[in-house]
Parts: sequence; structure tokens; C-alpha cells
Amino acid sequence: MHIFYTPDIVPDAAYELNEEESKHCVRVLRLQQGDEIVLVDGKGGFFNAVIENIHPRKVSVAIVHSRYDYGKRNHYLHIAIAPTKNIERIEWFLEKATEIGVDEVSFIICDRSERKDIKLERLNKIITAAVKQSIKAYHPRLNEAVKYKTFLQQKPAGQKFIAHCIDAQKSYVKDLMNLNGTYTVLIGPEGDFTPAEVDAALQAGYQPVTLGESRLRTETAALEACFEFNFLNR
Amino acid sequence: MHIFYTPDIVPDAAYELNEEESKHCVRVLRLQQGDEIVLVDGKGGFFNAVIENIHPRKVSVAIVHSRYDYGKRNHYLHIAIAPTKNIERIEWFLEKATEIGVDEVSFIICDRSERKDIKLERLNKIITAAVKQSIKAYHPRLNEAVKYKTFLQQKPAGQKFIAHCIDAQKSYVKDLMNLNGTYTVLIGPEGDFTPAEVDAALQAGYQPVTLGESRLRTETAALEACFEFNFLNR
Repeated sequence: MHIFYTPDIVPDAAYELNEEESKHCVRVLRLQQGDEIVLVDGKGGFFNAVIENIHPRKVSVAIVHSRYDYGKRNHYLHIAIAPTKNIERIEWFLEKATEIGVDEVSFIICDRSERKDIKLERLNKIITAAVKQSIKAYHPRLNEAVKYKTFLQQKPAGQKFIAHCIDAQKSYVKDLMNLNGTYTVLIGPEGDFTPAEVDAALQAGYQPVTLGESRLRTETAALEACFEFNFLNR
Repeated sequence: MHIFYTPDIVPDAAYELNEEESKHCVRVLRLQQGDEIVLVDGKGGFFNAVIENIHPRKVSVAIVHSRYDYGKRNHYLHIAIAPTKNIERIEWFLEKATEIGVDEVSFIICDRSERKDIKLERLNKIITAAVKQSIKAYHPRLNEAVKYKTFLQQKPAGQKFIAHCIDAQKSYVKDLMNLNGTYTVLIGPEGDFTPAEVDAALQAGYQPVTLGESRLRTETAALEACFEFNFLNR
């Protein structure tokens, strides 16, 4: 199955792949007129299509079957993670989180963050590749990096959690989580949140959780959170 | 906390770090006489020690406190995975599985495996680094690659599972798993097991399981299995 990510698709209209996707279609996949492909719009739209006209920069297709809310998730998971010093660790987190299930990822710059900048374009490409690879019709949303305090002021809806490593009273996710909810989970930098940052989150209504007894790296903790929320909502 | 992996340690005896660890201790960490370090033997031994004598190739230490069965796991998880074409995907699986919890990893060469060779030395180093980073006293065991059929003939003890993607009757792990057990889980190559391979596993007593609705890459599926067995045994 050849999947193309086409966020600008308008249902029931003729469609042309953009230049990049056309090139991929013609040069890499060497598809021909009449070949079947799948288009996903990243918002739940899943379209079976047939190639009508091959052109190196604008391949036109006819949509033969449309589905909406394809693979719609039964909860909404937003991970707010401090970027790791080595950006490859964030890259693989995004790939794996897309496969396992995540809806939105924010980057939070914390007191102990060594990295303060994030290039969204490359990270979005990694997500898109994972969306196609795992045949998903929803494309996780990625937000620009903001300071931790700014993020706390955003007061997202739903249940809010902070996963920190400081020795304190914490609960398991499974003992707090409401089914089919909207969740925001804060994941700290290498070296963890500072006690003041944890306090600020508690004041803002975040509940402290533990992701198990193991000492996990930042990106592993974030993936463990994705795993737990998806598993518990199965 | 500075952790050293010392599989050859003999309890209650004087100990000298080997050449590599001594070099790391002196040149990289720049530790001094009297500094405190931790030694783990990979078999549950966790030893607090003090540096007695600094030497670039043989640092001698005195053990001041010994613990055994440190962080002993309440189940035994053996993942048998087909090596991925891109070995980096196996490398990160091993790092993450060590953090989250795995006891033994085997490599199985399947009909659709593109990669047929594995260099254990480098992979063991990645595991050792993760053991130290996540402060674990147990070092997962790594086995040489074997043909899939050879592996099936080994008949491991405990519950046996095969996670495949063929459309068929499958159960969730949570509906089959006995608590605190010994488990072996087969994870197929890119392109999945062949139907004949699945049949052979079923004949050998492996139970078919699904790891959820998402189409997961080989290494993500293996990590999902680690997540599930650890989570369910929490």
C-alpha cells in the first residue's frame, strides 16, 4: 500500500499530488497510470485513489473511496516534553509516539534544559514518515518550544499530570486516569524538573505521577507515558 | 553517582577495576582517592565502594556496602526478535528495553529477514551503557542469532507468545498472561512472519497475541511487548 500525506485535500474534488509527493510517486515508487494509492489528510480522512495522469511534478489522481475519522482515537494525549540535548532522542520519540499513539507534542524549556531551540520542520517530516509507515489518518500536532512557565499558564483542558523523579508522594497513572479523556503530561529534562518547577505544576493543577520504578531517560519516560495512556484506554 | 559495570567482582574481596573502567575512572571522570563509586555485577549485586588507589590502568577500590538481588524483577521476559535491516533500530530497542525491563534477548533469522548477522559485542556495550545509566544491577543477556526453526526447537519454559500481524484470532497479552511468570515473545521481521512460520510457532505451543491496533515497526513492537509485560507485572 503506497500512502501519501495530503493535508490540503478537498473531499470529492479532483486532486493533484504536490511537487514533492509527485516526485516520490514517479521517481522512487515508479507508479503508473491506473495504480492504486492511498491519501491521508492528517485529520482522519483516508482516501483510496487511482492515478489518472503521471507527471514528474504534478500527478493527478481520482478518489474512488473516502473514509473519515479513520482510526479515530478514543482519547486525546498531549505530551509536553523538555527537548533533549541530543535531538536524535526527540526524533525517535516522535517516530515511536506516532506509531503507538499521541495527538499533540509541545516542547517546554525548563531550568535545567540544555537545549533551548527546536526546528519543527525536520521533526514534522519525521512524524509524517511515521504516519505513512504506520498507516494513520491522523497527524500528531507539534507546537513551537515555549518556556515552562508559559506552558503552565496555558491551562489545557482535561486531566493534567507531571511525571517527575523527585522523591515524593506520587500515583500511578492507572489510579488517576479517567477513561476516554483529554490528558496533558509534563516530562522533564535530563536532570529532571527543579523542586520549584514541580511546585508550580502542582499549583497549576497538575497531578504528580510515577511511570514505574526504573530510572528512565527523558524520551523513554515520554514514550512510557504514551504507552500507558494508550494501553489503559484500549 | 558514578556506576561501573564489574561482572567479575568477587564479594568481600579487594577489587581492581579493569583497564577500560580504570581509564574511564581516571581520565574521563577524573576521580580521586577517597571518592565514592558504585559497582554493579549484572547479576543483582550492587556494591558501594571507595577508591583506594588511583592508577591509569588498575584503580583499586574498597567495598563498603554490598547488596544482592538489587532491583530484582518479579518476572522473566525473553524477547526473540528478528534483526532489523538498519541495525540502529535494534540498538535503540536494546537501550530502551534495558531501561524499561527485559531479561534476555535472542535474535531469530526468519524467512523474510534481510539481515542475517549480528555483532554481539557492540550490542552488549549499548546494553551495559543503559544498565549504568538507569542504575540497574541486572544486565540483560544477549544470545547469538539462530535460525527461527532452531529457536522454536529450544522449547523455553514458561508462557510463549507470538506477536504477528496476519489477520487471525489473537488475544491481548493481558488476557493470557499469568502474573510473575517466565515469558518468551517472538517478534517478526519487517514484512512479518510468513504464515508457515506462524503455524510452526502455534504447533510449538506459542499463543498468538496482538500488541494493539497500530501497525508497529519491528523494534517498536518489541518495545511495546516490554512495556506490556512490565506494566502488567507492576
